[in-house]
Amino acid sequence: MPELRHNLITREWVIIATDRAKRPSDFRNSIDRKAAPSHVDSCPFCPGNESKTPEEFHRVTIDGMWKMRVVANKYPAVDREGTPERSINGTRRFVAGVGLHDVIIESPLHNTTLALMEPEDLVIALGLYKERFIEAYNDPRVEHVIIFKNHGLGAGTTIDHPHAQLIAIPIVPVQHRDRVTTAMQYFDDTGVCLMCDTLKTEINDKSRIVIETEHFLTFIPYAALSPFHTWIFPKRHCASFSGITDEEQADLAFHLKSILSKFYYGLEDPDYNLVIRSSRPKDIGNEFTHWYMSLMPKLSKTAGFELGSGMYINQSLPEENAAFLRDAHSN
Amino acid sequence: MPELRHNLITREWVIIATDRAKRPSDFRNSIDRKAAPSHVDSCPFCPGNESKTPEEFHRVTIDGMWKMRVVANKYPAVDREGTPERSINGTRRFVAGVGLHDVIIESPLHNTTLALMEPEDLVIALGLYKERFIEAYNDPRVEHVIIFKNHGLGAGTTIDHPHAQLIAIPIVPVQHRDRVTTAMQYFDDTGVCLMCDTLKTEINDKSRIVIETEHFLTFIPYAALSPFHTWIFPKRHCASFSGITDEEQADLAFHLKSILSKFYYGLEDPDYNLVIRSSRPKDIGNEFTHWYMSLMPKLSKTAGFELGSGMYINQSLPEENAAFLRDAHSN
Repeated sequence: MPELRHNLITREWVIIATDRAKRPSDFRNSIDRKAAPSHVDSCPFCPGNESKTPEEFHRVTIDGMWKMRVVANKYPAVDREGTPERSINGTRRFVAGVGLHDVIIESPLHNTTLALMEPEDLVIALGLYKERFIEAYNDPRVEHVIIFKNHGLGAGTTIDHPHAQLIAIPIVPVQHRDRVTTAMQYFDDTGVCLMCDTLKTEINDKSRIVIETEHFLTFIPYAALSPFHTWIFPKRHCASFSGITDEEQADLAFHLKSILSKFYYGLEDPDYNLVIRSSRPKDIGNEFTHWYMSLMPKLSKTAGFELGSGMYINQSLPEENAAFLRDAHSN
Repeated sequence: MPELRHNLITREWVIIATDRAKRPSDFRNSIDRKAAPSHVDSCPFCPGNESKTPEEFHRVTIDGMWKMRVVANKYPAVDREGTPERSINGTRRFVAGVGLHDVIIESPLHNTTLALMEPEDLVIALGLYKERFIEAYNDPRVEHVIIFKNHGLGAGTTIDHPHAQLIAIPIVPVQHRDRVTTAMQYFDDTGVCLMCDTLKTEINDKSRIVIETEHFLTFIPYAALSPFHTWIFPKRHCASFSGITDEEQADLAFHLKSILSKFYYGLEDPDYNLVIRSSRPKDIGNEFTHWYMSLMPKLSKTAGFELGSGMYINQSLPEENAAFLRDAHSN
């Protein structure tokens, strides 16, 4: 019998279609990253092509060579210049598309990926995410910032070279507002943070946990939208990613490296999206929202049902996914 | 300068990234449907394989041969038997996955598609959609029904043979509730239906119209989520698809055949999803919701930004898409 599970945090309903459940091994991908060269002359993110990227905001240099760079996106979704003018004309409403669109180049090597990098490199990358996140919110035109990563063609990347992106926009996405409202209502109803309560439930239940340390819990959500959909929650209540401490940053790097290498070895380097869900720094003190990281391997397609209902059909069991990932090799 | 456009009906914000806009011809696909055979021995939907499909609910027969069939899905997302038991356990909530999952086989020919079928065939198909839609809501376990179609691999189909699907579920999707609430607030604020108001705006503006007849308007939404995202609105206010009249059904068949053949010839048979968005029959009298059909060609990928924000980046201009489709061949 399939189950409809409700995700209290996102309000999404998911059909866990157990009757046609696939085994984790059915989701394995077959792209061979190791066959790619470590340097590609035509890649704008490879060393030697620094002039092909626009304005550089940060550079991490080790032994005279750059290790990571933060640059403006050459083909931005929003313009860095201009003011967010609004126009309201009956049912047509728009805001000028101004904001920031950065690229965080995570390695000089074309063919590496977070899963294969050293843990200390991930600490540096997370530090750059945090720094740009805070800086972006200092721009008075910015209302919301999304940090994300598209790994692989199926996840929407156009450049293989390892990189993350930051988009800062002059409006608050409805999805964010809705989730904040949901969390606020839960807090008002129960007196506790919905994500803190979810952490407690998952730690007691154990069946969906993949990795647990002092500061973070990596687990498969009870109503995971798709196979191996994974959440990394900080255990300490904090509304904004801007509040991550150095100790937490090192622990998060461990979780991220571990889960991504479990994906890499266990699922054979699947395409995936990574996003950081967070309130803005100035809302860091609120009791009802809680930042976290979400990873979504692209192992299934959404179709007309998902489009027409906003619901998802997950053909795998979250508890089985978690057991598989607990056992998967990580390095 | 990119524009952020707000879709009042769905509440979604879309970045129309004009600076990197593609021309309509950049979206053309290259799948050759005509090269496929008209009969495939192993296809469960081809004539001669009727025993490979489960229970049959409807059959349209012409000259002793079936033309269309409605059957149970062999691999249903929800179970046809059982009761929708609910369980609430802290942050974990679920409902047993019971409901209906039908397949509407639209032709005995394996290699045809709505775009190539006769207009009267589309009238019959729409009649079956309507009949099953009403029947599904007669099941007391059913709270919501979604009729949809996945055309092509990229749109999530697993069987090429032309067919639509109906999924009836024991809960109301949050997306539907949210949109009803939005429409209700608009009605309470303005005294008119949001969709009726949108129709008026689009008819006055003209720039996004593709096809207009007495009963329907086919247009590109002002804040289209993706290239060639198309809406077909009935001009007469009606909350539920169950209320479509015979005359409207014939006119809708004309719109659907025309727009799909414009996709077929103008965009070279792109993969697409089709969904009918509707309130249930018993809510047909409400003044604030208005059923419609949505078509979403799969010409772009969603990635981390969309996942992390619930927003979309559309790299094409709705007004250019509409002009292109107005001029595209339809047969």
